Amino acid sequence: MKNFRLTTFLTSNVTGIDNESLNLLFDKCSLKKYKGGEYLIQPDENCQHSFFVEKGLLRQYAIDKKGKEHTIQFAPEGWLMTDRESVFFSEPSKYYIQAIEDSTVLMIEPKVFEALAKENKSFQRFNNRLLQNHIRQLQYRINLLLSATAEERYLDFIKTYPDILLRVPQTMVATYLGIAPESLSRVRKNLANKSS
Amino acid sequence: MKNFRLTTFLTSNVTGIDNESLNLLFDKCSLKKYKGGEYLIQPDENCQHSFFVEKGLLRQYAIDKKGKEHTIQFAPEGWLMTDRESVFFSEPSKYYIQAIEDSTVLMIEPKVFEALAKENKSFQRFNNRLLQNHIRQLQYRINLLLSATAEERYLDFIKTYPDILLRVPQTMVATYLGIAPESLSRVRKNLANKSS
Repeated sequence: MKNFRLTTFLTSNVTGIDNESLNLLFDKCSLKKYKGGEYLIQPDENCQHSFFVEKGLLRQYAIDKKGKEHTIQFAPEGWLMTDRESVFFSEPSKYYIQAIEDSTVLMIEPKVFEALAKENKSFQRFNNRLLQNHIRQLQYRINLLLSATAEERYLDFIKTYPDILLRVPQTMVATYLGIAPESLSRVRKNLANKSS
Repeated sequence: MKNFRLTTFLTSNVTGIDNESLNLLFDKCSLKKYKGGEYLIQPDENCQHSFFVEKGLLRQYAIDKKGKEHTIQFAPEGWLMTDRESVFFSEPSKYYIQAIEDSTVLMIEPKVFEALAKENKSFQRFNNRLLQNHIRQLQYRINLLLSATAEERYLDFIKTYPDILLRVPQTMVATYLGIAPESLSRVRKNLANKSS
């Protein structure tokens, strides 16, 4: 078995996942490389995979009617990203998923996860936990968008994504926070003044 | 079996759910009545049930540090509401769930749903679908909060909750939309002018 980040991700989260299950999983996965700027999914396409980031950085975003970008989430190394809506309901995606750095991605078919869940109860619990955790994060984000100040949102971004601060352009961060780039500059300046 | 809304909800969604399973479920559920204004859950309590609304109207909301309310969701008759975070991760809730009308609620323990899912594959698929659908709605809401105008948000609210428009105070609707009550008045006035 190659030394994939996904192996560590699974063995550290799923009790009793054996080499046989892991081999089954990796046999069905394909490893793809994307150049920075390339798309994994674009609107109106059907998303058919979960993307596990072995290397690089992905971004999921939407473009509104006025042409403005809104970032839904980022996924650096060791994160799983997908358009669950499109995968689960077999509907065309409303989102872009783009590599914003040269990235290496394991493409996982949902069927493979389901098959593993059938065989291994611990994996089933883990899979369920991933779903529940996704719901937790989304609900938290809604609460932030409804109630937090620009500064609070930025501090939360740093906490959620400590490793990507220097890898993502500020304008892109602003589209994640739902604030204007000028507001983000102001927030960063205020925080710098506070800490100096 | 009593003629509960939940029975219709389940039999119309889960193929092959039999009376035995339904009896098992209802045996474990308790029916509770809440007066308008009463709380089902308050922050720092552990939420231990899913609440299925047989009659009435529930609201899930948070209060921020400045004392401002933010509505996460409403649940009228036939809707299921819970704080999944608190239930699944056994963590204290961050939210209020309040009856905003006199309400009759079936209190469902998560264990019962799990037991049913074990026995009935169709129920398992349905349960999974509920989770995926929840994710879909939350993601959609984030996109709305990031990108939609006040008018678009209000039109979406009407579409999501056609039956509760006249049952919820406008100030409460504004806390769901994430806009000031004055903005909501303006939006409603503009829409009324357009349609007249």
